[in-house]
Amino acid sequence: MQLEVSLGELAVRFGLKLQGEPGLKVNGVATLSHARAGTLSFLANSRYRRALESTHATAVLVSQADAALCPVAALIDANPYLAYSRIASLLHPPAAVPPGVHASAVVSAAARISPGVSIGPLCVIEEDAEIGERVRLGAGCIVHRGARIGADSLLTSRVTVYAGSSIGARCILHAGCVVGADGFGFAADQGTWVKVPQVGSVRIGDDVEIGANTTIDRGAIDDTVLEDGVKLDNQIQVGHNVIIGAHTAIAACTGISGSTTLGKRCMIGGMVGFAGHLTIADDVVVTGCSLVSASIHNAGSYSGGMPTVATRRWRRMVAQLRRLADKER
Amino acid sequence: MQLEVSLGELAVRFGLKLQGEPGLKVNGVATLSHARAGTLSFLANSRYRRALESTHATAVLVSQADAALCPVAALIDANPYLAYSRIASLLHPPAAVPPGVHASAVVSAAARISPGVSIGPLCVIEEDAEIGERVRLGAGCIVHRGARIGADSLLTSRVTVYAGSSIGARCILHAGCVVGADGFGFAADQGTWVKVPQVGSVRIGDDVEIGANTTIDRGAIDDTVLEDGVKLDNQIQVGHNVIIGAHTAIAACTGISGSTTLGKRCMIGGMVGFAGHLTIADDVVVTGCSLVSASIHNAGSYSGGMPTVATRRWRRMVAQLRRLADKER
Amino acid sequence: MQLEVSLGELAVRFGLKLQGEPGLKVNGVATLSHARAGTLSFLANSRYRRALESTHATAVLVSQADAALCPVAALIDANPYLAYSRIASLLHPPAAVPPGVHASAVVSAAARISPGVSIGPLCVIEEDAEIGERVRLGAGCIVHRGARIGADSLLTSRVTVYAGSSIGARCILHAGCVVGADGFGFAADQGTWVKVPQVGSVRIGDDVEIGANTTIDRGAIDDTVLEDGVKLDNQIQVGHNVIIGAHTAIAACTGISGSTTLGKRCMIGGMVGFAGHLTIADDVVVTGCSLVSASIHNAGSYSGGMPTVATRRWRRMVAQLRRLADKER
Repeated sequence: MQLEVSLGELAVRFGLKLQGEPGLKVNGVATLSHARAGTLSFLANSRYRRALESTHATAVLVSQADAALCPVAALIDANPYLAYSRIASLLHPPAAVPPGVHASAVVSAAARISPGVSIGPLCVIEEDAEIGERVRLGAGCIVHRGARIGADSLLTSRVTVYAGSSIGARCILHAGCVVGADGFGFAADQGTWVKVPQVGSVRIGDDVEIGANTTIDRGAIDDTVLEDGVKLDNQIQVGHNVIIGAHTAIAACTGISGSTTLGKRCMIGGMVGFAGHLTIADDVVVTGCSLVSASIHNAGSYSGGMPTVATRRWRRMVAQLRRLADKER
Repeated sequence: MQLEVSLGELAVRFGLKLQGEPGLKVNGVATLSHARAGTLSFLANSRYRRALESTHATAVLVSQADAALCPVAALIDANPYLAYSRIASLLHPPAAVPPGVHASAVVSAAARISPGVSIGPLCVIEEDAEIGERVRLGAGCIVHRGARIGADSLLTSRVTVYAGSSIGARCILHAGCVVGADGFGFAADQGTWVKVPQVGSVRIGDDVEIGANTTIDRGAIDDTVLEDGVKLDNQIQVGHNVIIGAHTAIAACTGISGSTTLGKRCMIGGMVGFAGHLTIADDVVVTGCSLVSASIHNAGSYSGGMPTVATRRWRRMVAQLRRLADKER
Repeated sequence: MQLEVSLGELAVRFGLKLQGEPGLKVNGVATLSHARAGTLSFLANSRYRRALESTHATAVLVSQADAALCPVAALIDANPYLAYSRIASLLHPPAAVPPGVHASAVVSAAARISPGVSIGPLCVIEEDAEIGERVRLGAGCIVHRGARIGADSLLTSRVTVYAGSSIGARCILHAGCVVGADGFGFAADQGTWVKVPQVGSVRIGDDVEIGANTTIDRGAIDDTVLEDGVKLDNQIQVGHNVIIGAHTAIAACTGISGSTTLGKRCMIGGMVGFAGHLTIADDVVVTGCSLVSASIHNAGSYSGGMPTVATRRWRRMVAQLRRLADKER
């Protein structure tokens, strides 16, 4: 059974201006080019407005500036993508998960399980772990002793949370992510390495999302911290004692070395590498594949790396650069 | 019990020219330098032909050009490495896995399990999942509701396939890979982020291999697509709505940002970063550690990045480049 | 119950010089800035000696040179960080794990389990696997047939060890790491790829640590080898037939392509990419985010990559470099 909502109802519920017939109904979302009758689409970037012309959507979310070009019904908002995100959540709700503990899950009698919790097949919850109200754990999640998962959080599948880590409310953690493994700490001893015990923990705020196979190390002594609203994509590495400021978003494959602090509301591209012990200001943007080897003290956009060209030309670039450096010695 | 095959039989079965005694037998493969009597080796690249001289292999797969130098029996083919791959598969068959469902697996009564399937210990198969004929799932695999695994595919161990994802026939997925987790989509709302539901799925063709801990995100609205014969190494990240053309091979640690399309038969090195919304032509080669920030419209070889030199020289290179840029402002 | 130890006892046990009252007691470690009474801190780098002034630690591990500045009791050693690592291990011992096999684990009757082993919930141990004395497997570990885990090793949680892999004594493997998945080997056949069976294995020495979600591929024919004392951080990729020399330490997200050999006692930064078939000498240091595309024959420090600057300046750098290369054609 699919939910069907009228444009009039959407306009009222989400405070949108409607251009067109309020009785028209939509039951799902679609891209402009693949939309069929009964779907709602959106135009977030005016650059792509030509795609409006040929759409078969029943209605499109647009800005006021683009509304005149819309050949079908339009729902108008200053931020069409934000309005889209909310309507899409309404039309495509997550599958309902009834509360309860699957018979195959291994739950310690000494764990604290709040009401309304759903624990999927083959999960492991160790002693003194604390699972907040309405938390949902998909299949195969492991919550080690003394870890805490805040209310309404979702561990989708096969998430590992190490002992003592703390995760806030309304967080989403995807498959394969690991919270609280040991940081990388060794003391040199005559050509060999002696392990430095990692006795800190991980503290994650509310409304944080963590992508698949991302790893967040526990602190060496103090804690590793992700503040509220941080969004991490897949395969990100967060070293011990890193602090990530509230509402910072980081794209996939980025690595942050130990003890680096990122400011609030930063936007970090994919495959960026941060050296350790840096301080990055609030509202910093770093483009993808940059090597950040020094602290950044001011908001703004930063970049590194040498973008791809034809291999022959690249060889000349590298050769010229080496020549230049060797000449000026 | 080890399989033993005569050179004569191999020559006939694989259409090879034999130089030497047809009755000689081999029972395994080896590198030229570590070969012992009874093994078959190969020389794929004439540059290394000196290694032929001292080999103890019983026979070597070589090209016609190198056959004269081979001091032992030679099996001759235009593509010795391809012939090697086929003979190695014959001599080292995968361990046979009897069909059946392990008692510890949690299989929904509403899953569709085809004949000849093998489901290992502690697997989870949710409702409406569809497991094709002769599929083998190693220990700890999770197939969420409505996902589909095509005939003769192998999920080696601890693979996660999210709801609704579709995987073709004869695919191989390695441990820790995650198919169909949410893409990274958020709408900005006054300094915070609102999750954009990821309602697309993942469609994977036939004969695809996916390495350990690789992640392939589901589409935001339309699907993420891997066409037939794509080969992905370990720890690759494939963003939402990426399309990878047939028979493209990608080395480890590469990341592909959302909505980028790669052509057919591309060869992508390790740790390459692709920006989002790019189009890469068919038959493109990108060397390792390149940052691809613009579309590539023609077949050919492309490179980026600044290769490693002594740290002192590197510092001069960086300084010179900055000087040059600042001077010309 | 927390262990409490007197400074006098620590001085005797670890061969340290004590400046202050031997009867003072400590029960845990802390950073200089967050220390409270009853804790022990350390100063490893004289650059940060100003932090001594305001510490509330009961005692601080320092070098002789910094001891005069220490306002509280001092434990003096030539290598304070090494002494710290040992005392921290004493004060923060890992949680004791009683031997035994959890009822939910699936252990083959044909596996060889030594005395004193602890096998956690939902582990899978296949036939002919060999688990050494006092090995501890946390929840959800999978040890495939014929794999070997040496005495006193710890697989913390959800580790996957493929068939036939061998791991030495006193190793630590973190969640999500995968040992022995297939290497990335395919032979070209008229625009498609034919899988080359990966018949080698993985051999890991003693005292090796492997981080979360790190992947170590089995060899194509010969084995992939990690020698004694190697330390690998999270999300590292080790390709087939790589050899890593004893006591080499590698930071997170680094990738090593197939058949490359790293020397002993190397220190490799994070997100470094090694091309295949290289030889790296002993005692080489490579700084983070470097692209190593050629062998390195001498000990020393090496670097690559173009560090991050303001995006506008970076655009000029890239443009200048391209101009220079095109001019000199």
